[in-house]
Amino acid sequence: MVVDLASTEPLPAPAPELEDLDLLRAALEDPEREVLPASSVNAYAALLAGAPYAGFTPSASMNLPALHALAAERGVPFAGQDGKTGQTWLRSVLAPAITARGLRVLSWAGSNLLGGGDGATLADPHAVQSKLVSKNRGLQDLTGSTVTPLHIDNVPDLGDIKVAWDHIHVEGFLGSRLTLQTTWSAYDSMLAAPLVLDLARLLALADAAGLSGPVPEMGFFFKDPWGSDVHSFAEQSRVLGVWAHRTSAQADAAQAGVDEP
Amino acid sequence: MVVDLASTEPLPAPAPELEDLDLLRAALEDPEREVLPASSVNAYAALLAGAPYAGFTPSASMNLPALHALAAERGVPFAGQDGKTGQTWLRSVLAPAITARGLRVLSWAGSNLLGGGDGATLADPHAVQSKLVSKNRGLQDLTGSTVTPLHIDNVPDLGDIKVAWDHIHVEGFLGSRLTLQTTWSAYDSMLAAPLVLDLARLLALADAAGLSGPVPEMGFFFKDPWGSDVHSFAEQSRVLGVWAHRTSAQADAAQAGVDEP
Amino acid sequence: MVVDLASTEPLPAPAPELEDLDLLRAALEDPEREVLPASSVNAYAALLAGAPYAGFTPSASMNLPALHALAAERGVPFAGQDGKTGQTWLRSVLAPAITARGLRVLSWAGSNLLGGGDGATLADPHAVQSKLVSKNRGLQDLTGSTVTPLHIDNVPDLGDIKVAWDHIHVEGFLGSRLTLQTTWSAYDSMLAAPLVLDLARLLALADAAGLSGPVPEMGFFFKDPWGSDVHSFAEQSRVLGVWAHRTSAQADAAQAGVDEP
Amino acid sequence: MVVDLASTEPLPAPAPELEDLDLLRAALEDPEREVLPASSVNAYAALLAGAPYAGFTPSASMNLPALHALAAERGVPFAGQDGKTGQTWLRSVLAPAITARGLRVLSWAGSNLLGGGDGATLADPHAVQSKLVSKNRGLQDLTGSTVTPLHIDNVPDLGDIKVAWDHIHVEGFLGSRLTLQTTWSAYDSMLAAPLVLDLARLLALADAAGLSGPVPEMGFFFKDPWGSDVHSFAEQSRVLGVWAHRTSAQADAAQAGVDEP
Repeated sequence: MVVDLASTEPLPAPAPELEDLDLLRAALEDPEREVLPASSVNAYAALLAGAPYAGFTPSASMNLPALHALAAERGVPFAGQDGKTGQTWLRSVLAPAITARGLRVLSWAGSNLLGGGDGATLADPHAVQSKLVSKNRGLQDLTGSTVTPLHIDNVPDLGDIKVAWDHIHVEGFLGSRLTLQTTWSAYDSMLAAPLVLDLARLLALADAAGLSGPVPEMGFFFKDPWGSDVHSFAEQSRVLGVWAHRTSAQADAAQAGVDEP
Repeated sequence: MVVDLASTEPLPAPAPELEDLDLLRAALEDPEREVLPASSVNAYAALLAGAPYAGFTPSASMNLPALHALAAERGVPFAGQDGKTGQTWLRSVLAPAITARGLRVLSWAGSNLLGGGDGATLADPHAVQSKLVSKNRGLQDLTGSTVTPLHIDNVPDLGDIKVAWDHIHVEGFLGSRLTLQTTWSAYDSMLAAPLVLDLARLLALADAAGLSGPVPEMGFFFKDPWGSDVHSFAEQSRVLGVWAHRTSAQADAAQAGVDEP
Repeated sequence: MVVDLASTEPLPAPAPELEDLDLLRAALEDPEREVLPASSVNAYAALLAGAPYAGFTPSASMNLPALHALAAERGVPFAGQDGKTGQTWLRSVLAPAITARGLRVLSWAGSNLLGGGDGATLADPHAVQSKLVSKNRGLQDLTGSTVTPLHIDNVPDLGDIKVAWDHIHVEGFLGSRLTLQTTWSAYDSMLAAPLVLDLARLLALADAAGLSGPVPEMGFFFKDPWGSDVHSFAEQSRVLGVWAHRTSAQADAAQAGVDEP
Repeated sequence: MVVDLASTEPLPAPAPELEDLDLLRAALEDPEREVLPASSVNAYAALLAGAPYAGFTPSASMNLPALHALAAERGVPFAGQDGKTGQTWLRSVLAPAITARGLRVLSWAGSNLLGGGDGATLADPHAVQSKLVSKNRGLQDLTGSTVTPLHIDNVPDLGDIKVAWDHIHVEGFLGSRLTLQTTWSAYDSMLAAPLVLDLARLLALADAAGLSGPVPEMGFFFKDPWGSDVHSFAEQSRVLGVWAHRTSAQADAAQAGVDEP
């Protein structure tokens, strides 16, 4: 298994080589050219090695049409994108519940404070951009609201703790208003680590069952799921459970086929 | 439809008449005796009138074995108990999501501030007791934690606004700790009103489909659902959707049976 | 009295005419030139009329050396700058108290959400800049910390309510850490209005007592007090009380001098 | 120096021996009787030893007329009561500032969560009572509001961290309303320790200057200051500074008198 846990990169500029596998292969032949960002070089290498792959950051990594084509060619399963550990996870829990009560989200404002290496990386306005987009996509999809101001600040004294504040303004029956505020404080790495372990196990399972390409049922783990537009965490939990059960049976059957010639 | 929206009553002391319909009928013959609390007198009257019934407060109301027997006899559907509008609703959204991430709730402390008539009623230590029990039952069931201190304070200057603060302490991977705080501020009646309207519509549907007795699929609306031990709001939402679809078809079929002799 | 309550303007670029009263007068003779921003035109007019002046916004207004010279020439008292109504007021209350306990502020992060006309104005990155500088100056002075990320977001659905969240990270005895979070929610105009009334009354008093130029004791009202570097609200309260008492006596004496020829 | 840092005790029932030093001495002669609570036995012993004394808990300790008489007889200075470390300190910072702005506190509701030995002690409803009274006295004095519901909950998993939430509801200009919420999270012992050290140093200074009886200027350290009804932290800070300066001079003078016969 290969899991991308490196610091967030700026997204690459559009280019034909990123869209088409043949053009990509040709471009990679030229030692003078830098075609792929580092995360996508790693994804390419994983595919060549036949290793199932997970993109745990918002970097481009596997998320290029040319690499999708290569994954299909090699029969490799992959999942992503951007681990849903803290604030975004919480949003994907709350937003569908608010909607299920017939309430309308007017605005959802958020602030993130973090130190550590992650804080320093995201202090770069270019790097933070892909993160902010990834964090807000699901929220806007779930709520229909576009008033979702969001900030990430580097606060070095917090070390590896991430603090997130959300202010949710909601309209209910007969135009009445309500507010919900949440404050989340956690070691982000400690939330990510078990997800990474589970991802590795479940990708091994997908591989054993012979799956290939994006696994949409792994949206449970991600802010911006590849192959799926389901963002509700409750729905993702249900879907993942069903998938794991079914895929276990497929993997067992595949193994039995190997064992019993 | 009859919906109990009166102020919370203290629970009645156990008595044989509350357990057995024949004993209850006999006891009610005696004009000297006060057998049932006011909420249960109303529930009794609703059953005699054949009116579907919802218990939106934690009062005893329909929740007595003798009245369940009468509902079965009369073929009347009912649902309850204690409308899940604010803090408890939020808890039933968050707790299953925390568990689904493999995190363990260590403690979940809460504070409620409210004014209005509700605040004045719950300033009475006897009346508040049934409310606190009802609010905590689902939480302890969902989290497995019993460290759930909870207070309700009468703060008259808040009027009809209810403010609820929760402090959730959670253990994650390798013993790491995280905290989540929520502050909820809303006009509780404006949250309750549309639920009451939906309950009336859905009980009418249940009645049209010929259902009788407790409707567990209506747990979506309640802190302490009759006939169900499902407290997860996401699961309740899913179950209610399935039920509404299926029961609509049954009601249509029943109507067709009437129309086409 | 003239009080500037107009929307925040971008600050003017440095220019010799803003520094020197003679150059300013000459420049104003030329009808082709736009020399002063609107707020400073108003301040100029107030000085010509002999009207005491208060700058309740972070716009340039009276805060130009050329206008200070004119105020001295005309004997007009003035006070500013940028009304200290909500979050900044709270910070000037908390920061000195934290310091008085020997605690060290590591970081002080803040977020402001507001709608209304003020929100729309501050959505302009140029206009917001003078506001952010004005809000942070006192905080950094009081705490010695420079990790003070601050954001102002336009959230139109909040209307005239301003919500401010602060996260304060503090180091105490033996390197122990503590956090304090505050959430403030208020109609900003309702906080500003009585300050404006008091300012008008106290400037009238200053005028009656024959004062001229900046009144540093009015720092009580302002984020960025003219003529003073005291930001502690408790100290400002004490100083204002002493000043009002003393200046009342001066005004009475001046009046007596007029009455008794 | 003797500083009482033991767990909070229930207050003793009123008795003549607690009021009058001669009665107390007589009662203490009788080995069969338990006259004083443990904290007051310690205070008595401190006075016999001529040791300046500080009461850092809400227990009775020195706060009995009979012991005040003994302190006067022995010429021993003392200070108390109940260290003002976290939530109460914060309240004594905020409340005077709110009042200084002409705002009116409608209600001030609070919740405390704590584990450790302190949490276990205060889980006892008798022990918590003296604590709650001590915490609320200053607040009601500063704000004039009596709607100050307050809870202390034992949450063992928090260990030595104390979390305090306050919800402050305030009326401003023309009846407008604002809310301020604060959440405080800290190791309470780490806040107390430096105060205890400073108290010991300042009591040594008081002793060196020949002071005797309660030192009201040490209200800076206490929730419920002996000999003073000043609760505003800013005012207490100012008063303590002046006192320390003056008393240093007195102690120097006293020392000089000893040195130069």
